[in-house]
Amino acid sequence: MTNLAGGGEVLQDEEAIIRLLAPLAQTPGAFALEDDCAVLEPKAGTELVLKTDPIAEGVHFLPDALPADVAWKALAVNLSDLAAKGATPCAYLLALSFPAAPRRSWVIGFAAGLAEAQERFGCHLLGGDTDRRPGPLTISITAIGTVPLGQMVRRGTARAGDGLFVSGTLGDAALGLMLAKDPARAAAWDLSPAMLAHLASRYRRPQPRLALAGLLRVHASAAMDLSDGLAKDLGRMCKVSGCGARARLADLPLSASAAKAVAAEPRQYQAVLAGGDDYEILASVPPPNEATFRQAASAAGIAVTRIGLMTAETEVTIEGLDGRAVDLVQAGWDHFAGDANAQSR
Amino acid sequence: MTNLAGGGEVLQDEEAIIRLLAPLAQTPGAFALEDDCAVLEPKAGTELVLKTDPIAEGVHFLPDALPADVAWKALAVNLSDLAAKGATPCAYLLALSFPAAPRRSWVIGFAAGLAEAQERFGCHLLGGDTDRRPGPLTISITAIGTVPLGQMVRRGTARAGDGLFVSGTLGDAALGLMLAKDPARAAAWDLSPAMLAHLASRYRRPQPRLALAGLLRVHASAAMDLSDGLAKDLGRMCKVSGCGARARLADLPLSASAAKAVAAEPRQYQAVLAGGDDYEILASVPPPNEATFRQAASAAGIAVTRIGLMTAETEVTIEGLDGRAVDLVQAGWDHFAGDANAQSR
Repeated sequence: MTNLAGGGEVLQDEEAIIRLLAPLAQTPGAFALEDDCAVLEPKAGTELVLKTDPIAEGVHFLPDALPADVAWKALAVNLSDLAAKGATPCAYLLALSFPAAPRRSWVIGFAAGLAEAQERFGCHLLGGDTDRRPGPLTISITAIGTVPLGQMVRRGTARAGDGLFVSGTLGDAALGLMLAKDPARAAAWDLSPAMLAHLASRYRRPQPRLALAGLLRVHASAAMDLSDGLAKDLGRMCKVSGCGARARLADLPLSASAAKAVAAEPRQYQAVLAGGDDYEILASVPPPNEATFRQAASAAGIAVTRIGLMTAETEVTIEGLDGRAVDLVQAGWDHFAGDANAQSR
Repeated sequence: MTNLAGGGEVLQDEEAIIRLLAPLAQTPGAFALEDDCAVLEPKAGTELVLKTDPIAEGVHFLPDALPADVAWKALAVNLSDLAAKGATPCAYLLALSFPAAPRRSWVIGFAAGLAEAQERFGCHLLGGDTDRRPGPLTISITAIGTVPLGQMVRRGTARAGDGLFVSGTLGDAALGLMLAKDPARAAAWDLSPAMLAHLASRYRRPQPRLALAGLLRVHASAAMDLSDGLAKDLGRMCKVSGCGARARLADLPLSASAAKAVAAEPRQYQAVLAGGDDYEILASVPPPNEATFRQAASAAGIAVTRIGLMTAETEVTIEGLDGRAVDLVQAGWDHFAGDANAQSR
């Protein structure tokens, strides 16, 4: 079964699909999706922050995912990057690649999820195309945000001594995916229905931390979003910043659900460190800003947790519960290594 | 055989791929591809024109295509849209999706083709990502251009009485693709090696008509690029413009190669009308501007041909060589109809 299977009317005509998406494109430069290109007039004093990150069935979402969830996730994963850069979303382009003509009901559900997400996140569909090709259903979004001139928060500007913060909680989405693929684990972990729902929702509907964008511009020395797992992403931030980092497993923020799962089965810390799909923010914050950053984030409704600090070493060290360093090569995840969690990308 | 098959070193590491692309990203806002997002500061008095159109192996390029040609085409098809809108390219984002880890030699060839194309077309790589997923090798480019404020050339603003022009010649790429898949046709059409090379090159290396961009802003009432074939694309322009069009098959510009092919096998007019992959410009030009447009285009090194005119009807009529209207439903092409030419998309 794939996301496009099932009964009901099938849309053979590309223009019929575009018509269902056109209500999302009510901004002037979108021309109601009736032109070949879109136009964007940037506000004076701002520059644009751009990100394109496609998602594909079987890689970033499951074949039985609801179309509204697919749409939400396609937009959210790109906006998560913008949030980490201190940017405010304004618009996005969408390219849909279908391996088979979609059902009308699928497109309607997809458009509804996109409508909900763009309303929540404050941006508009600016341009949309569809084509048909073999391979998995793929949604390619290019997200566009704005920052005041010169104020994009960089990834490579962390400094030794800065506090290391993450937003929200880690590992939920990876655990949610694991449960979706193997529901029997729920019993082993002794999770309540509410806990299961929490983990599932974290996988299906990531929440870009847009409320932190402005605070990151003011308080953070560097930031990035966590999409491939803390171990790998922290390694990247350290590498381009030319420093190292130390953190403690015991300090990583876990939801009640994830805490219960790792308590029952400690090797699930793998999901926390390297499962990916967190779409939380990793930020380095100079010590004088730490308290204010934490308070302002809390006031904005998003908990941030200090998990360690940047160091002058070149290594990333995460201290395990036993006091020994976690083997990060094992914990890390690579797009090209094809590990067991690759489904979560 | 696919584009990624063959021997040589394989790049398991995403960062190794990005390093090979980084020399293309020497513009300040690209941060040498070391950040999560890119930054673009638009020039005052301009607005941005945006287009995203992914290309995939087996759909837009053949499995044995040279990586440099794949790169060229991925960028060119998007810039062709910008040219038709009167825009000047400035930057592009790139997302590469690999079904398997690519060989180093493939990535080097791809980067070389991209370097050649961006140098020729005057733009820079601004952001690049790679991921791994099943399905065909896919290259998703988001092209960004600029126009003076409010001057993007629209698709839906043609008026009855305007002259209908196309740039260059039609059908070459579709014939080139046909020959690549069935080389025996070359003998039937009696094409010289130079003619064969011309058609092959037109498929592999489309030339966005950027030299026409400024002229379209001044002289055209509407324009779009021809990617799905004249029959379908002209129908789209008429539909959003609320008018019709008349053209004559005998007036369509053909290369010497295409002319010889259709003379030998008249049903190959199908390739001219609906083969797609032309990446030429279709423009409507008000009568007072026609002569100047033609002269200025010629001075810019690009022939434009008047193929008919826009009408107050609602239909598109193309008069065949026998004086009767060509059946455009048959000649047309739909992304979702899965006709024999779908390979050319």
